[in-house]
Amino acid sequence: MLPIDLNEKFALFTDYWHPRIVGELNGQLVKIAKGLGTLPMHHHAAEDEMFLIHKGELTLKFADDTAVTIGAGQFYIVPRGVDHQPIAEQEVEIVLFEPATTAHTGNVVVAETRTRLVTI
Amino acid sequence: MLPIDLNEKFALFTDYWHPRIVGELNGQLVKIAKGLGTLPMHHHAAEDEMFLIHKGELTLKFADDTAVTIGAGQFYIVPRGVDHQPIAEQEVEIVLFEPATTAHTGNVVVAETRTRLVTI
Repeated sequence: MLPIDLNEKFALFTDYWHPRIVGELNGQLVKIAKGLGTLPMHHHAAEDEMFLIHKGELTLKFADDTAVTIGAGQFYIVPRGVDHQPIAEQEVEIVLFEPATTAHTGNVVVAETRTRLVTI
Repeated sequence: MLPIDLNEKFALFTDYWHPRIVGELNGQLVKIAKGLGTLPMHHHAAEDEMFLIHKGELTLKFADDTAVTIGAGQFYIVPRGVDHQPIAEQEVEIVLFEPATTAHTGNVVVAETRTRLVTI
């Protein structure tokens, strides 16, 4: 295996809220996604989800109307069961760590929902 | 929870090959460590180990004398059971992603081995 270069992987696609798999270990997947705009509020019943920001900023809004904004070089872990709504006012590049079983829009199925993810 | 800032966390310590815990999810730990010099060749029998480089470069040498060098913004996953020797010619900042059970020097106990890791 060669080292995986995140910039090179992010350059391979342009669409938003469509995670790609870039690594797998211990039953966990490393995924990358670009975001722009808003996903619906959702949660993952059985999985914690880690958002590590590679470029840009991601805001996570919660059900109580609080929010956190995560910048490049920062990460945030959303515990299982916690409703969250990803919002990106400008393009953001996100690295996700989560179990292989995690559906990226959680308990909600919307136009952006992908049921099969591709490894790049 | 507030977002975790990797630069802020790396600024909290100066010693080498001493991982600190900065996050936990799904039975996995997110750890950070600084490296300079060489650790002994070792492996982890039951855990894959991910090295994501935050700053600098890390070389992993393998038992067959091949090596990979991982730079900032790149990662490498060492499969379980594979002997590897971390080498840093200059200071490197590493983000590690691995099961909570992983011992950082694997099957080898050396001066750098830490049996208890602290969360920062």
